[in-house]
Amino acid sequence: MSQIMQPYLLFLGDAPDRLAAKTAIGVHDWRPDACVGQFRLPGCVPDLGIDEPGIAGAAERGARTLLVGVANRGGVIPESWIALMSEALEAGMDIASGLHTHLSEIAVLRETAERLGRRLIDVRIPTESYPIASGARRSGHRLLAVGTDCSVGKMYATLAIEREMRSRGMNVDFRATGQTGIFIAGSGVPVDAVVADFIAGSIEHLCPAADDDHWDVIEGQGSLFHPSFSGVSLGLLHGAQPDYLVLCHEPTRTHMRGLPHQPLPGIQECMEANLAWARVVSENARFAGIAVNTFHVDPDSREGMLAALEDEFAMPCVDPMITGVGALVDQLLG
Amino acid sequence: MSQIMQPYLLFLGDAPDRLAAKTAIGVHDWRPDACVGQFRLPGCVPDLGIDEPGIAGAAERGARTLLVGVANRGGVIPESWIALMSEALEAGMDIASGLHTHLSEIAVLRETAERLGRRLIDVRIPTESYPIASGARRSGHRLLAVGTDCSVGKMYATLAIEREMRSRGMNVDFRATGQTGIFIAGSGVPVDAVVADFIAGSIEHLCPAADDDHWDVIEGQGSLFHPSFSGVSLGLLHGAQPDYLVLCHEPTRTHMRGLPHQPLPGIQECMEANLAWARVVSENARFAGIAVNTFHVDPDSREGMLAALEDEFAMPCVDPMITGVGALVDQLLG
Repeated sequence: MSQIMQPYLLFLGDAPDRLAAKTAIGVHDWRPDACVGQFRLPGCVPDLGIDEPGIAGAAERGARTLLVGVANRGGVIPESWIALMSEALEAGMDIASGLHTHLSEIAVLRETAERLGRRLIDVRIPTESYPIASGARRSGHRLLAVGTDCSVGKMYATLAIEREMRSRGMNVDFRATGQTGIFIAGSGVPVDAVVADFIAGSIEHLCPAADDDHWDVIEGQGSLFHPSFSGVSLGLLHGAQPDYLVLCHEPTRTHMRGLPHQPLPGIQECMEANLAWARVVSENARFAGIAVNTFHVDPDSREGMLAALEDEFAMPCVDPMITGVGALVDQLLG
Repeated sequence: MSQIMQPYLLFLGDAPDRLAAKTAIGVHDWRPDACVGQFRLPGCVPDLGIDEPGIAGAAERGARTLLVGVANRGGVIPESWIALMSEALEAGMDIASGLHTHLSEIAVLRETAERLGRRLIDVRIPTESYPIASGARRSGHRLLAVGTDCSVGKMYATLAIEREMRSRGMNVDFRATGQTGIFIAGSGVPVDAVVADFIAGSIEHLCPAADDDHWDVIEGQGSLFHPSFSGVSLGLLHGAQPDYLVLCHEPTRTHMRGLPHQPLPGIQECMEANLAWARVVSENARFAGIAVNTFHVDPDSREGMLAALEDEFAMPCVDPMITGVGALVDQLLG
């Protein structure tokens, strides 16, 4: 996909809660320097605590893109948003969105963008032709986050690892495979929207052969054990050809996300499966450790839980948002 | 996808060899009664040995669809084909094709079809919106062919099983997932062309809950061990929710198809992997047996090879085109 130009003006709309604005929150958490401010409509509840310069003010601060960082209700883009979006185009910005309703379906936006030479970027639509994967061994190092389930913290884990590696002076890039990750990186592959035959090929394209000291830290998607999305996860694993895996886990789940009938895999089972499939294309693949999202765990139990998992699996076990990921990155250097 | 109306006039173009006409050959092999004849252009080498009634004659015999059963060279549809196709539309037929060049890209065909109310069916283009898979247990029986590699005989194995089951009076449908299979069945899901998020969902849609005595016999695609297409294979496996699997194998391969660097899985390894993943959605899944494509095996060795595999894996091992598949179907009744 074409590069989304930063910095952003983050549009939160009239988001009723933080969940509805999680894209904007994620972008601001990981790329605060790429955000010139937020734009909130009357009634918007979440607040990033940053400036609200308005459209003209954001343009003055150099904003290149109005980023729709809110999930709208019902999939319809309301009239009030369209006026605001047109104003952003007039002020010199592109617009980027991951909404189900595509920006380019809205005639006035399409016409205004064409007239002004601006871009409407719908990150759910792959715009490139990807190759069929070859699976051939390629240079450079790659790390992939995999999960016991969907939405267990794979993006946050990989972004934390990228940040830690960069702080140590390592040659590293975060490679995005989902919409928030793509906004953060400014580019990526919306892998769940790619045509099935090209899943692995799109990931080979995303993280091609690289210098011997270079690391791609790749955002994972779904889980091999989630029957709705397992094909995406396996294609991603084979396309990534990872040297290292990190297992992401949310310990309070009682069933696979969205599927009350579907039991969770065990951590051991999930690691063994991912390792076996990784080794089809990367014979020395191994786990760097486990990243646990303990957000819903009793704070008094966290430390003990992580320590018990470290003992059980004989590898570092961290919560990226609490303990950091230094112990995982140490493994990569070992 | 909308039903492709039978019977067909099989168009072989100027195919230089049988491989180029394998779609037409496959359709004629499995549905001879659905073919009113063949249409060959000057220079066409393969010959199905059936009537060549011409366009008008085919229409008189009730042909509903001109089926493009040839892979053209270079992906361009030559002028001579277009004239012939227009004639078929005028004579009352739809046109169905799996070519990379879409019929609907050719203005004269598009206009003629619109004027006459005929359909141009490009089976590589999914035309339906598929659901996200749920993986919830559903009624009816399902059998899926899986493979050690791509192109090892999964379609022929499943068609042979369907034919055998039907001959025994069983309530069975062949479910197509590739273009030749779709022509044979008249409908199906071109699973490798489906958007990644909907792979498993498209297969749940293809073989929905059914009567307790009903069998869906599902054409497989690719292999879990083929790094180009493994995502398709795993999504298909989870969407199929199979009660029974049949492992398809071509014993003379030296590497995964198209990938000289990629070793083949062992039969045992491949069966264990498919079984483990099938059981994520179908806890009692089991193998009915092994279907070996011995076309390239020394005829004197075939019988011994099949017997040795039967001994090793303690299950029926057949070549569908030589021994038939009765021994596999016996397993389904046991």
